[in-house]
Amino acid sequence: MKDDNCIFCKLANGEIPTMSLYEDEDFNVIFDAGPATVGHALILPKEHFKNIFEIDEEVQAKAYKLAKKMAPVITEVFGADGLNVLQNNNEAAGQTVFHYHIHLIPRYEGEKSMVAWTPGEQDKEKLEKALEEIRARLS
Amino acid sequence: MKDDNCIFCKLANGEIPTMSLYEDEDFNVIFDAGPATVGHALILPKEHFKNIFEIDEEVQAKAYKLAKKMAPVITEVFGADGLNVLQNNNEAAGQTVFHYHIHLIPRYEGEKSMVAWTPGEQDKEKLEKALEEIRARLS
Repeated sequence: MKDDNCIFCKLANGEIPTMSLYEDEDFNVIFDAGPATVGHALILPKEHFKNIFEIDEEVQAKAYKLAKKMAPVITEVFGADGLNVLQNNNEAAGQTVFHYHIHLIPRYEGEKSMVAWTPGEQDKEKLEKALEEIRARLS
Repeated sequence: MKDDNCIFCKLANGEIPTMSLYEDEDFNVIFDAGPATVGHALILPKEHFKNIFEIDEEVQAKAYKLAKKMAPVITEVFGADGLNVLQNNNEAAGQTVFHYHIHLIPRYEGEKSMVAWTPGEQDKEKLEKALEEIRARLS
């Protein structure tokens, strides 16, 4: 189902014209309008899902199959040295458009345009406490 | 196949003890030793693949199915507000251990521990030129 107020629904389904790198029945791959690096692309499902919590499992599987297909092509065509595959969920995680999408971000040696993080330290006590609950929920 | 010199092979296969959030035949989910945030976890395939370019398509599909299963559990148990699902390929992209892995990074409102990027602008001419080659390679 599409959401009529969602810009990524419109882009994915060709209602707003954009450069399409690849299109099939389920997805459209476009360039990010506010790119982290040259060649930064987005995989957009045509169907509307907000995030990883809501997306259909099969659609997610197809999206990452497509990510694997696009990865070497984008990396090689742009002459990149690496690639980030990033998918953000909710505002706190940097998601700005609430239509599930996968970022393919070509990375270039010497370019520091995307800082991932400064490694912290684990609070082992906290983690051990969480472990029990995590395992209980998964079993 | 395992790589005897790979620390993630050893961690995934239980040769180095660590807190395991989840384990099955193909994967081990552990906490990152240098976390971006509290609860930062890694999905490690037991089999050794360097990156997205090398990983078996079916193993990748299973890895993301597991990511979707872990996502709400980790987010809820740690009381996080969002989640980044990140997979880095090659040194230029911030990959530090060359065994394919997916980062699950819980994110907390008001915490700026992971800067994604400052949006740049597209060089349309460059992208249009790349488009032709991308489409040719995909067809």
